[in-house]
Amino acid sequence: MLGRLDHVALAVPDLDAACERYRSALGARLSPPKDLPDHGVRVVFVELENTRVELLEPLGTGSPIARFLEANPAGGMHHICYEVADLAAARDRLVGEGARILGDGEPKIGAAGKPVLFVNPKDFAGTLIELEEA
Amino acid sequence: MLGRLDHVALAVPDLDAACERYRSALGARLSPPKDLPDHGVRVVFVELENTRVELLEPLGTGSPIARFLEANPAGGMHHICYEVADLAAARDRLVGEGARILGDGEPKIGAAGKPVLFVNPKDFAGTLIELEEA
Repeated sequence: MLGRLDHVALAVPDLDAACERYRSALGARLSPPKDLPDHGVRVVFVELENTRVELLEPLGTGSPIARFLEANPAGGMHHICYEVADLAAARDRLVGEGARILGDGEPKIGAAGKPVLFVNPKDFAGTLIELEEA
Repeated sequence: MLGRLDHVALAVPDLDAACERYRSALGARLSPPKDLPDHGVRVVFVELENTRVELLEPLGTGSPIARFLEANPAGGMHHICYEVADLAAARDRLVGEGARILGDGEPKIGAAGKPVLFVNPKDFAGTLIELEEA
């Protein structure tokens, strides 16, 4: 059922500082920053040969990343996003196996404009999983 | 300088339970479990189309994963591993930019039999980065 790893998301307290560090110390290729007010994040992608890493800074009030940074002020690994071919089928399989979908349980439109859902990390050994319809 | 994302590593308190969950609820394709006593871990890979996710359970005494699970008993995202073409050059660039290499600062042979090093997460916004020579 799992397809590609679409991205790994890292929460950072200072996006500009993180970009400078990734660029200068790792020679990373970075996308331009993008504000996504509907998702409460400002985003830069580290573009890799086979996937990408998403650097997330809180934007506005009520950002889920702000809450994460309250618990992890230095930043840290936030979630991992897998592609699936059929998100509704993936949701039904997860629920059938007792995993809990965050929010109201229905897919939403994610930051990339595609349907996504998030699975309760308590049901996957502490890792927050995002599923995105490919 | 950064090449492919080789893997994302997740620490889990119970590898068999995690495998069962990934298989049944996500339809994940998993490698057979492998004990790596020199690294203090038992490992299963979630094989994806473009990369892989490493599920890590502590093995033996003094496992770095056991220490991580003491702080995060449910498990969680542990590190991210990038390939680089020239690990010594990558190390020199990191050190030149003020980032700290864990341990004695010299590459070691990692779990996949290739030279690796780990960078202090305090120098990368809380994320533990492994670099592996491709």
